[in-house]
Amino acid sequence: MVSTIDLWCNAKMETGNPFKIVALFGKYNAQGIADPLLSLANNISQRGHHVVFEHDTAHNIGAAAANYTALDTQEIGSQADVAIVIGGDGTMLGVGRQLTATHVPLIGVNHGRVGFITDIPLHQMHHVIPSMLEGQFEAEQRTLLAARVKRDGNVLYETLAFNDVVVNRNGLSGMIELRVDVDGRFMYKQRSDGLIVATPTGSTAYALSASGPILHPMLGGVVLVPIAPYALSNRPIVLPDTTEIVITIEAAPEVGVNFDMQSFSELLLGDQIIINRSEHNVTFLHPVGYNYYATLRRKLHWNQHISKEDDLS
Amino acid sequence: MVSTIDLWCNAKMETGNPFKIVALFGKYNAQGIADPLLSLANNISQRGHHVVFEHDTAHNIGAAAANYTALDTQEIGSQADVAIVIGGDGTMLGVGRQLTATHVPLIGVNHGRVGFITDIPLHQMHHVIPSMLEGQFEAEQRTLLAARVKRDGNVLYETLAFNDVVVNRNGLSGMIELRVDVDGRFMYKQRSDGLIVATPTGSTAYALSASGPILHPMLGGVVLVPIAPYALSNRPIVLPDTTEIVITIEAAPEVGVNFDMQSFSELLLGDQIIINRSEHNVTFLHPVGYNYYATLRRKLHWNQHISKEDDLS
Amino acid sequence: MVSTIDLWCNAKMETGNPFKIVALFGKYNAQGIADPLLSLANNISQRGHHVVFEHDTAHNIGAAAANYTALDTQEIGSQADVAIVIGGDGTMLGVGRQLTATHVPLIGVNHGRVGFITDIPLHQMHHVIPSMLEGQFEAEQRTLLAARVKRDGNVLYETLAFNDVVVNRNGLSGMIELRVDVDGRFMYKQRSDGLIVATPTGSTAYALSASGPILHPMLGGVVLVPIAPYALSNRPIVLPDTTEIVITIEAAPEVGVNFDMQSFSELLLGDQIIINRSEHNVTFLHPVGYNYYATLRRKLHWNQHISKEDDLS
Amino acid sequence: MVSTIDLWCNAKMETGNPFKIVALFGKYNAQGIADPLLSLANNISQRGHHVVFEHDTAHNIGAAAANYTALDTQEIGSQADVAIVIGGDGTMLGVGRQLTATHVPLIGVNHGRVGFITDIPLHQMHHVIPSMLEGQFEAEQRTLLAARVKRDGNVLYETLAFNDVVVNRNGLSGMIELRVDVDGRFMYKQRSDGLIVATPTGSTAYALSASGPILHPMLGGVVLVPIAPYALSNRPIVLPDTTEIVITIEAAPEVGVNFDMQSFSELLLGDQIIINRSEHNVTFLHPVGYNYYATLRRKLHWNQHISKEDDLS
Repeated sequence: MVSTIDLWCNAKMETGNPFKIVALFGKYNAQGIADPLLSLANNISQRGHHVVFEHDTAHNIGAAAANYTALDTQEIGSQADVAIVIGGDGTMLGVGRQLTATHVPLIGVNHGRVGFITDIPLHQMHHVIPSMLEGQFEAEQRTLLAARVKRDGNVLYETLAFNDVVVNRNGLSGMIELRVDVDGRFMYKQRSDGLIVATPTGSTAYALSASGPILHPMLGGVVLVPIAPYALSNRPIVLPDTTEIVITIEAAPEVGVNFDMQSFSELLLGDQIIINRSEHNVTFLHPVGYNYYATLRRKLHWNQHISKEDDLS
Repeated sequence: MVSTIDLWCNAKMETGNPFKIVALFGKYNAQGIADPLLSLANNISQRGHHVVFEHDTAHNIGAAAANYTALDTQEIGSQADVAIVIGGDGTMLGVGRQLTATHVPLIGVNHGRVGFITDIPLHQMHHVIPSMLEGQFEAEQRTLLAARVKRDGNVLYETLAFNDVVVNRNGLSGMIELRVDVDGRFMYKQRSDGLIVATPTGSTAYALSASGPILHPMLGGVVLVPIAPYALSNRPIVLPDTTEIVITIEAAPEVGVNFDMQSFSELLLGDQIIINRSEHNVTFLHPVGYNYYATLRRKLHWNQHISKEDDLS
Repeated sequence: MVSTIDLWCNAKMETGNPFKIVALFGKYNAQGIADPLLSLANNISQRGHHVVFEHDTAHNIGAAAANYTALDTQEIGSQADVAIVIGGDGTMLGVGRQLTATHVPLIGVNHGRVGFITDIPLHQMHHVIPSMLEGQFEAEQRTLLAARVKRDGNVLYETLAFNDVVVNRNGLSGMIELRVDVDGRFMYKQRSDGLIVATPTGSTAYALSASGPILHPMLGGVVLVPIAPYALSNRPIVLPDTTEIVITIEAAPEVGVNFDMQSFSELLLGDQIIINRSEHNVTFLHPVGYNYYATLRRKLHWNQHISKEDDLS
Repeated sequence: MVSTIDLWCNAKMETGNPFKIVALFGKYNAQGIADPLLSLANNISQRGHHVVFEHDTAHNIGAAAANYTALDTQEIGSQADVAIVIGGDGTMLGVGRQLTATHVPLIGVNHGRVGFITDIPLHQMHHVIPSMLEGQFEAEQRTLLAARVKRDGNVLYETLAFNDVVVNRNGLSGMIELRVDVDGRFMYKQRSDGLIVATPTGSTAYALSASGPILHPMLGGVVLVPIAPYALSNRPIVLPDTTEIVITIEAAPEVGVNFDMQSFSELLLGDQIIINRSEHNVTFLHPVGYNYYATLRRKLHWNQHISKEDDLS
């Protein structure tokens, strides 16, 4: 499968040094993040790359970052050839959303809990990243959702979501009732705790907890997963990501909507959430030999067999 | 299967007129509830039963109830031989909780949405109830949960639950982490949206939406059903109802607990919810020939087959 | 979304009479199938279409079919402009497989049990089909799987599947163990009763019973659904339909494989089933206003709400 | 919770040496089973217990067993005070079924794959078993199912099942249709691949793979779990174990029934499987501090959290 991103990468490769300017992002205010950031900066500077720090990251590190240029995200978007993120999946998604219109690809180093997207372990970065910057990588494109909240015909809020758009009840109030239309056709009304619309990236996040299927990152689909649906016969549905999904609030004591865990609460009756695939993608770079399925097995214990474990303790 | 309740009923039967005093409850402030209540009162008075109205119900009906005695719930508990509830399942469970220590059995007439427990359709009550009051009924005992909220060793709150005790996150905050101990043994820690502890009665309510199994009302069990659990390998567990379940809040941005949908919010780290089976049961009376499984099929569409339906419209 | 099929149809439309030759197929040996076939043939002949019967169908009908030309499937593939199938989904899929390399589109009339794909009810065909043949239709393309069974490097069997490829244990023997590789990358080993690889069309058939998600027909995906997997953490995965899936039999007392319910049994250790998307599609024509989601709701009771049903009977 | 078995054990304890005669069973024909059997026999003989070998086990071990008495299962049932099984869960269940009417309790040492019931690891048996034989144990009673196959009113086959009774289709044939009645009341008709009726012991075996809930061993219940049910709205149901379950074969190309994996195949239309709780229980002895939930977590990865695992390898 040869994708646009592969073509882009090949073109870059031919220039000899595709990743001249490397931008570093660290998890916001994370303890112990300065050391790995600086030692990585040092490592790749010595190999001839020009390292810049994202502004807030530089600020968090303090004086030690003074030897490096600090740029804001917009400047990074226009100047950097690649961004490396040290943090958890949340940090990675946040940076991805900011760089979404820029084509700057992302490399993720795991300094968090699970590290599903940030697939390079901290202790391997010095070994793995230099060869990636020399062209030894596999590129993967991830889609985003473009979502709008509409009230009385006016757009109140507009944002991008990497993982999911989640409509759900606020706390301990009763069930909500939603109406879902797809490409102008009525799909269903649903009474439940909520509804998750997830990208392939989001299919291994909250949607998975609510019993959704896993979607491969290259699948051109989005999945709708109900949360605690009232109807026994509910079941997730996977739609082409070229569809437009409209969710209308039909009844709800208190209901809100999350975009990648960022809340827009206080939805009213008749409010609509309109979801399309964003025109932009984000590109992740992985070490050569990256196996998505191995990540599923290792990080999610997917399909893990019952094993013989001999200890009573 | 001959239960205590059967013995009690047989004993009553032998007295010739087991249900001398019949108390009527109506759904609180429900539109159109006065007419069926009064016509039922009239019907069964004429057959020699002494009808009393619950105090609030009498108040809601207004002047027309003046011919009947009005009693508060406590008086009904000590004087009535049976209580008839016209309303939805919520009303029925509310009355059940109030009469729980009294042995007054309940008959439910459905004036609500689903009517899972209130199994007699409104239009059949005049036909069905008189024969039930003459002894043509089947009795069924339902268990309740006795639950306490404990903070720093002190009991903050204590209540009964017919359906379930639900610990869950408040609204759009992140996952919560719970620790569950059963009879003093550590069971698991769980990260999820919440946890439902349900009686057999509650197993067909919220727990069912969260993918729990159905528990037959006569089963001496409670079921623990996680809501959107983080671990793929989670699965509901059914415990004997003689166990003590202790849920400890280990981590949570915002977490609350519901007892039959009545909220006790604002739980703190370290708070415990302690759940045992209540020493009291509530008895429901059903028409002869009542089939619990038919109710499952009719009301929940349980196991409903894919059918040939011929209309495009 | 303008697809190739739309372009094809538009081109046909411009010729004035796109569906000159109409081929009729009936469910094999089905009781009562002759009457609707003949009356439909009569109806559309009178409107200027040239009706032909598939050979076996003509034979089953007997003398009454003598007024019409009988052609075998291959002749139909090269000469007909559209095929109409009266039967169940099984018949429709069978005809579809035979015509797969021909671009003849299919219309389905339900004379079977569920009629998920054969979406026109028998009693509406006289009303609906003439206007479809005049161009009032919606076209939808369905993908097929091309599957091969390989032993010791040799291909033993090769076929197409519309719904699914199902590897499963024969009867009452124990669990089987499969290895699955996708595009040359190891995905997982799985112990289970079996594994279903389903197209979007097949996602609402057997895969749905085994708890798979629904895939929209336009989604470019296939879903892998395990049957009774040993690992608690198993979960269906949806892959792009451009991938190659290789299933290797690693351990099994007795194991076989089904292609749309056609069995190839007696697989041996080390045998491989190799699955790709077929290069051919099949086109279904639906009446204007066809709503796939309505079919899901009506035929599968998808997301059907718990309803108030008042009868004890 | 003080059970009959506790009383029995206490009574035995008071005699000073409750476990005078210890019978040893080994997994049939298992490689490497002779050594642990003999060393265990030696160990506990030296502590003053009288060791006997089950007849087949003695035969498998060969000459080295000559120093010990060999008894058949019936003799063991009448003479032994406890039986120790070295093998997998299958061996343990087999021995349990044979000793079911005898009250001889069982201790299980895991020499198999999972060892869910055989909870003592092989390398800990020398340490753990002597103290158990001195009274340091926890006793747990497990129920069995008594099942009969009936054709035209005659009982064709009768057996006990520790785990489950499984009615399912033979191999690659189509769906079967079953009718289920409980205590003489119609429960449902079901189209599916099959139906599992499981004890609490069996709830963590095949029923779990088919998405059933876990039943605690002390729960007085049985669970009915459908295998790949046709109806989306199916859901497992847990019934009191005092009920009688009758399964009638209503339609099936080829259908069989398993009792703990022992097949009785070739069921015909109208055949009935009648399931009750057996009047006998089997008692398992566990080391002090045994935690059933720990076994669930360790052996099934129940509720296992997504973990940070740092290795790419």
